Amino acid sequence: MPSIVVKIDSSTFTSPEKIEQIADRLIEQKNSGVQVIAVVPGLENFDDFLFPFSPILSDNPSSRESHVLEAINAQIGSSLLVIAINKKGGQAVSLHGWQAGIEAVETDGNVLIGSIHHERVTEHLDNGKIVIIAGSQGINHQNDTLVFGDGGTETTAVAIGAAVGAQHVEFLTVQAGVYTADPTGVERARLLHQITYDEMLELAHLGSTFIHPRAVELAKIYEMPLIMRSGTENGEGTLIKGEVDMEKNLIVRGIAYEADIIRLTVGYDSYEQSSLSAIFTKLSENGINVDIIVQAVIDGVKPTVSFSIAKEDFAESIKVLEKSKPELGFSFADFEVGLAKVSIVGAGMVSNPGVAARMFDRLRKENIQVKMVSTSEIKVSVVVPQEDMMRAANSLHDEFNLAEELINK
Amino acid sequence: MPSIVVKIDSSTFTSPEKIEQIADRLIEQKNSGVQVIAVVPGLENFDDFLFPFSPILSDNPSSRESHVLEAINAQIGSSLLVIAINKKGGQAVSLHGWQAGIEAVETDGNVLIGSIHHERVTEHLDNGKIVIIAGSQGINHQNDTLVFGDGGTETTAVAIGAAVGAQHVEFLTVQAGVYTADPTGVERARLLHQITYDEMLELAHLGSTFIHPRAVELAKIYEMPLIMRSGTENGEGTLIKGEVDMEKNLIVRGIAYEADIIRLTVGYDSYEQSSLSAIFTKLSENGINVDIIVQAVIDGVKPTVSFSIAKEDFAESIKVLEKSKPELGFSFADFEVGLAKVSIVGAGMVSNPGVAARMFDRLRKENIQVKMVSTSEIKVSVVVPQEDMMRAANSLHDEFNLAEELINK
Repeated sequence: MPSIVVKIDSSTFTSPEKIEQIADRLIEQKNSGVQVIAVVPGLENFDDFLFPFSPILSDNPSSRESHVLEAINAQIGSSLLVIAINKKGGQAVSLHGWQAGIEAVETDGNVLIGSIHHERVTEHLDNGKIVIIAGSQGINHQNDTLVFGDGGTETTAVAIGAAVGAQHVEFLTVQAGVYTADPTGVERARLLHQITYDEMLELAHLGSTFIHPRAVELAKIYEMPLIMRSGTENGEGTLIKGEVDMEKNLIVRGIAYEADIIRLTVGYDSYEQSSLSAIFTKLSENGINVDIIVQAVIDGVKPTVSFSIAKEDFAESIKVLEKSKPELGFSFADFEVGLAKVSIVGAGMVSNPGVAARMFDRLRKENIQVKMVSTSEIKVSVVVPQEDMMRAANSLHDEFNLAEELINK
Repeated sequence: MPSIVVKIDSSTFTSPEKIEQIADRLIEQKNSGVQVIAVVPGLENFDDFLFPFSPILSDNPSSRESHVLEAINAQIGSSLLVIAINKKGGQAVSLHGWQAGIEAVETDGNVLIGSIHHERVTEHLDNGKIVIIAGSQGINHQNDTLVFGDGGTETTAVAIGAAVGAQHVEFLTVQAGVYTADPTGVERARLLHQITYDEMLELAHLGSTFIHPRAVELAKIYEMPLIMRSGTENGEGTLIKGEVDMEKNLIVRGIAYEADIIRLTVGYDSYEQSSLSAIFTKLSENGINVDIIVQAVIDGVKPTVSFSIAKEDFAESIKVLEKSKPELGFSFADFEVGLAKVSIVGAGMVSNPGVAARMFDRLRKENIQVKMVSTSEIKVSVVVPQEDMMRAANSLHDEFNLAEELINK
């Protein structure tokens, strides 16, 4: 019997009604003739529950126990969903990471999924059970529980899907699928029927919270089709796979935008003194994520490097730069706040060098100043004043005709 | 190096300060030159956390998942305690039931501790770690987590102690140890230095909430010394063991009392119709605990059987009796509310038949009416009007000179 994996959204665990709704959905899927595995995240209010103990939990709790507590949260979710399914007459069983045979491997401080010994999962499926797996957790060779970090639950879902040879992995979200742009800001945004792994990777990296890049990357490797769809409403959602059918002619597939960007610029007296590696290593060591990096080395001009960071990292970045000034050797630092990033994404761009030009042209016509630019094979990002962000997103959505439904789907 | 097991009280997990206090204590014990294992219960407010999901969790959640959720609660406690110890510079590690090698065996609907494969516990101890074990849980042969029911955490502590050959098992409580009577009601109550397993069993059965009989029984089998002491104050507490040193001359060792007792009486038209077995089986099937049972079969008088139940079981008992009247064959039922039970306990009673007489005599002098009597080898219980309960307890405490400290300790 074919099997599917369903990744449950964390919004599910905010009310008993929502849990019951997902329970109904999983029972229906099971009754339609497929084996069903669900991978669940933890409860959003678990931190509130632990809040009274924050004097103990704050500043550097033992890493091992932080992992254990995080794993426990998803375990609570798995039991709640199993109980809801069983109350409705379905047959479900919860498996924690160690019971589902999920191996965790530590590499350079990251915890990755090793292999999955899925015998027990398969056995329960063959016995007609809906298998509910606590997400983002596995055990290492010492039988210690570890969690997989950001995107761990989504990555677990894809890994389990690959291990059992599932037809596809479904991601239930609060939205109907992947849109050409965020429909809450771009009125004419349209639901995409299909999108490639690479496009999804760029959209996710650009601040879309739909699905973690790590999960998409794994799906790409295993060629596991992903479906993003609403957890509460019917609808086909968006199919994510290697190649998209008959839509290649649509060069730009989506618009992403992100507010609260800050540009930092560091200048050196001479080229010899500048060391890009040193500055970004220092920032990374302090947990500061740098997004767009632009380096300018012009004859007769002092070399500068500009980079964008998120607003919440600003204070820490300034602190790190001030403290490390002697060792990093720069002569001045400057910043600009109140910026935003707007990007166009599409696998079709690879062979269309004119796309970026068309983008800049439209922004110029809209009188929107471009502060920084970054390009990849399937993406062009610009940093613009935050007050122009939505106007930029909407005008680019129009410019590339994203609102037009094509014949194919 | 000798080892000890410490059973943590659930009151510990009500504030970070209390957790830190216990963390300090365990570190101190470790530094004094013993290997330390602690067994922890769950958090008292875990149910509040799950309350929003009660529509799902109420009425018959899957038994398997109820076990899992209960086990998870103690796992949270174990992580909190480990983090607190490690923050203070100690070295601790949490082990859940499956990691500590605790086997759970299901027998007639009860979950019992099978064997304990304590290699991992011993390994961590030998590496200088304080081992914090999540209480009342183990795994069966299918690797499913099961919890051990009432008294499970205390029983786990004793079982672990027996498995690793601990010197003793300490039970940290909110009281300084075991008293001759509840000090909140009997002013002259005195802390006992020593008490036998059997005496402790009777005291626990009599409504003292100190320690579950199941744990005492296990300690008795393995001859594991138990120490009951305050978790927050210094003090030697009470040592519980097989034979008590030089205190045998003290015939009565303690007074216990329990309010809100109800007497039910069922009468039959003839002896042939009465079936004690049938009525108590029926009550038991409906989860009603019967304590004292008194049967009177007097020639020329209709046979009756009286028994005492707790107030909270009253409504259900009446319902069960009414519904089962035809099949149980009794002709009338009667009840009396507003009663209490007062008991004297002491291993020395075995060879002193006059103790019960002395008890009744004192109660008669105090004008306290005895409604029911029940005796065992080391205990005499009487049911009296509730308004006389404290007067009965205090006068019996005086009668048997319990306030007097003996030379020995």
